[in-house]
Amino acid sequence: MFKAVGIITKLKDHKSDVIADKLNLFLEKKRIKVIKSTREKIAKYADLIVVIGGDGTLLNTARYFVDSNIPILAVNLGRLGFLADVNIKDMFVVLEQVFKNEYTKEKRILLSCQIEDNKKIINRHLALNDVVIHRNEVNLRMMEFDIFINDKFLSSQFADGLIITTPTGSTAYALSSGGPIIHPEIDAIGIVSICPHTISHRPLLIPGNNEIVIHIKESKEGAIVSFDGQTSFTVKAEQKISIRKYDNFINLLHPKNYDYFSIIRSKLHWNIKL
Amino acid sequence: MFKAVGIITKLKDHKSDVIADKLNLFLEKKRIKVIKSTREKIAKYADLIVVIGGDGTLLNTARYFVDSNIPILAVNLGRLGFLADVNIKDMFVVLEQVFKNEYTKEKRILLSCQIEDNKKIINRHLALNDVVIHRNEVNLRMMEFDIFINDKFLSSQFADGLIITTPTGSTAYALSSGGPIIHPEIDAIGIVSICPHTISHRPLLIPGNNEIVIHIKESKEGAIVSFDGQTSFTVKAEQKISIRKYDNFINLLHPKNYDYFSIIRSKLHWNIKL
Amino acid sequence: MFKAVGIITKLKDHKSDVIADKLNLFLEKKRIKVIKSTREKIAKYADLIVVIGGDGTLLNTARYFVDSNIPILAVNLGRLGFLADVNIKDMFVVLEQVFKNEYTKEKRILLSCQIEDNKKIINRHLALNDVVIHRNEVNLRMMEFDIFINDKFLSSQFADGLIITTPTGSTAYALSSGGPIIHPEIDAIGIVSICPHTISHRPLLIPGNNEIVIHIKESKEGAIVSFDGQTSFTVKAEQKISIRKYDNFINLLHPKNYDYFSIIRSKLHWNIKL
Amino acid sequence: MFKAVGIITKLKDHKSDVIADKLNLFLEKKRIKVIKSTREKIAKYADLIVVIGGDGTLLNTARYFVDSNIPILAVNLGRLGFLADVNIKDMFVVLEQVFKNEYTKEKRILLSCQIEDNKKIINRHLALNDVVIHRNEVNLRMMEFDIFINDKFLSSQFADGLIITTPTGSTAYALSSGGPIIHPEIDAIGIVSICPHTISHRPLLIPGNNEIVIHIKESKEGAIVSFDGQTSFTVKAEQKISIRKYDNFINLLHPKNYDYFSIIRSKLHWNIKL
Repeated sequence: MFKAVGIITKLKDHKSDVIADKLNLFLEKKRIKVIKSTREKIAKYADLIVVIGGDGTLLNTARYFVDSNIPILAVNLGRLGFLADVNIKDMFVVLEQVFKNEYTKEKRILLSCQIEDNKKIINRHLALNDVVIHRNEVNLRMMEFDIFINDKFLSSQFADGLIITTPTGSTAYALSSGGPIIHPEIDAIGIVSICPHTISHRPLLIPGNNEIVIHIKESKEGAIVSFDGQTSFTVKAEQKISIRKYDNFINLLHPKNYDYFSIIRSKLHWNIKL
Repeated sequence: MFKAVGIITKLKDHKSDVIADKLNLFLEKKRIKVIKSTREKIAKYADLIVVIGGDGTLLNTARYFVDSNIPILAVNLGRLGFLADVNIKDMFVVLEQVFKNEYTKEKRILLSCQIEDNKKIINRHLALNDVVIHRNEVNLRMMEFDIFINDKFLSSQFADGLIITTPTGSTAYALSSGGPIIHPEIDAIGIVSICPHTISHRPLLIPGNNEIVIHIKESKEGAIVSFDGQTSFTVKAEQKISIRKYDNFINLLHPKNYDYFSIIRSKLHWNIKL
Repeated sequence: MFKAVGIITKLKDHKSDVIADKLNLFLEKKRIKVIKSTREKIAKYADLIVVIGGDGTLLNTARYFVDSNIPILAVNLGRLGFLADVNIKDMFVVLEQVFKNEYTKEKRILLSCQIEDNKKIINRHLALNDVVIHRNEVNLRMMEFDIFINDKFLSSQFADGLIITTPTGSTAYALSSGGPIIHPEIDAIGIVSICPHTISHRPLLIPGNNEIVIHIKESKEGAIVSFDGQTSFTVKAEQKISIRKYDNFINLLHPKNYDYFSIIRSKLHWNIKL
Repeated sequence: MFKAVGIITKLKDHKSDVIADKLNLFLEKKRIKVIKSTREKIAKYADLIVVIGGDGTLLNTARYFVDSNIPILAVNLGRLGFLADVNIKDMFVVLEQVFKNEYTKEKRILLSCQIEDNKKIINRHLALNDVVIHRNEVNLRMMEFDIFINDKFLSSQFADGLIITTPTGSTAYALSSGGPIIHPEIDAIGIVSICPHTISHRPLLIPGNNEIVIHIKESKEGAIVSFDGQTSFTVKAEQKISIRKYDNFINLLHPKNYDYFSIIRSKLHWNIKL
């Protein structure tokens, strides 16, 4: 049973602070230890993290805590998220169940992205949703790049950019670019081009243990690599971007009656007739 | 090392018969046993099958021989196939290598589809590419159906049809309907709607061990279920279609320098600039 | 001002009959002549047609009455249609306005499709939405056909079928096949392939005065040509299908505050956040 | 008959300069006046412009010379363009025909884009292909904007950007974003969202005489507006972007056997089998 709960709130958001206070009281009554800060302390002492925010707050939390192996429960602040699927009004009911070990635990992989300059690693980042390589908008032309999978050449592309997505990220940015929905239990990584010049390009799924390497071609301005759309880094043309499944993963906790397809249906409005 | 080769040719195709004769001579010189018929004898005695035809002939062969566990090498009659990737002019060179155990072996899953009427199984079929449920064209209206994954409701759809595809089939019909390319090593099944009425529908990938059940709704004419686009069966509205990964799989043999991505590039013309 | 109203109801639909009776009373009180049957009489004597049904009933009505040049007002039976945009509860208010000449009149073109066998016309049909050529489902293979625009070759295609759509039809079946939304004031015809084998095919818009000719290639079973998805005709491989804008058009009446984009937004759920 | 030819070459491109010299000789022999610079002189004295370059050079030339009403013939430097459809090797043959008045003249519209700040016009630009509004990449979030057509609200969108395209531009960037091919004779403007968050968004065609107004919402970094992908301008959130068909248009000259569909087929590889 969980004994120490770390609470993570949405940055500078009053509503999530108010809910965190209520949660604090609730947990104290149950004589469960609460750690509200710092992140370092949460990573060290908590055995459960409750995120109060939306998918965005969860993404950030997941990247930070992935190595600490603490399960995460995500409460949304109003609108159902793909990840933050517990509504505020259900929060206490769900937590009561969680403390009785009645929940669904779901593993979600992360991507690890490494940028090398002349064989020297100059940057390393994680992503729960996606690593996106995007042309620098200052440059009006499309980006040209080569993709290699496990050192084998995949293709040369002219495009606005490229999305490398986990199954988790398949319902985020990749979906807007025409990618498929990938169930989180599938061990695969998605490669989705953004506005590819060659219109016969299609989203591609490769096995989860494959490594993707991207070389940006002749570009003075370089390209922008972003992680979950939250942080970014500028790469130059000679540098090498390699992406692979990260060794550790996160465990999302959901209500026991959790239904992945129900969330998909609801978020994509499949219930509503045209 | 392989000692008995079964040869399968394209039905009623003179060119493939001529090549089969040459192959026969080649194998006899090497003192390798040749079995040209019947299919039953091939299944019983061969330890390697050489298919001379195209992807179509291979699909048919794969479904028939999947339980015999004999590896298959597929020679195309001119145009590179996604599956039949050995060109006639390279056939003997590749075979020399194969007999020296220099080849790439690749596992490909099949789908098993079962149709039940009132809990009684009335039809059972295999597919290497896809199981397609299509409205009966006599009926001008779209087909309405419910999809369940592992007994959980996925969605109700109005559409022209539905494609359940293996990774192998992802470059066939599913690709024309907007599905992604799925690397054959990924343990997943694709679900792709054909012209769905609800335009927020997207191709979905589910884990390879999941079972898909489809219920056709109120349709006098019923729907047509086809297997690899080669055989078909008419289902009525009350009947239940269940699809799952088949227990056995086939082993495709490729030249030792086989490169899946190279075939994709070539077949989809990713090399050619717009 | 309108003096004689023809009422068309949805076939075998009690609800639309009940509303038709109420409408009858309403019109009699206003001393406006009502013609409920036959269609011939409506075509002859009415100067306004009120359709009570949905988009389907309107399509049928439009094809029948296009040559009589009578404006049509379409009342839907519950769910907003792309065409039938007057709700039952607003029907009398809208009609009061219409009788004061307060309305929006909108011209909608139709397509005329002619099928020739050896230069002899064997069939002729109209369509307000679309003419769809579809492979005969008994035939499991894709359909192969050539398209000509004003006698110039456009392309050879392998596909499930082909949609020739008016702007009106662009929000119907063509939308499910990836076609764009075409504002009804644009003088253009859309050509949208259904599941084309060549994945670089894209929807194409040609000028409204162009003629499209389609030749079905080698097909024992022939193809099915359907009109607004309501009636159909089987064509054989040697026969010629020609499609062009029909000389006459229909006038749809809408409430004076009619807003095409508002209907699009509402029907496609652009208002709802993901 | 044409008496004074202005020659425009690709910027800093030796090959196009060499061809320009040959063209110069050819024209002098025919006693046709040649104007190689300046652009102002060409606009004043030429009655035909020959562009030696590719589609890019033509786009630039078209925007500059649109008000001078001089027809343009575009020679490509190797690879067939959608616009520059005369091959170098055919250049003199085509020109001989042109000087005999044997050619196809084709009208192409341009877009005029105006940016206003507090009702003051701060920028005005033309585009032959497209006006593209794109999020500033420094901002990792999608752009939020409202679209109005003729002062009527169309939709609120979250997206990477928005393409407003002429028929000419429909085979350029808009095609990579899922837009349809629009025949240049159609009087319409295309609106294509780039990676829209709401996945039920679809390309939309509005009548050529409609005005599009875009309001960027709450964005510190503003958005980038680019014209034919060649020049760009940064707009802030409070500013208003209005786009409409430009009053003048350009006349492209083509060989007399010019065939729009043939170029489409060739550029999109519709001839090549999968």
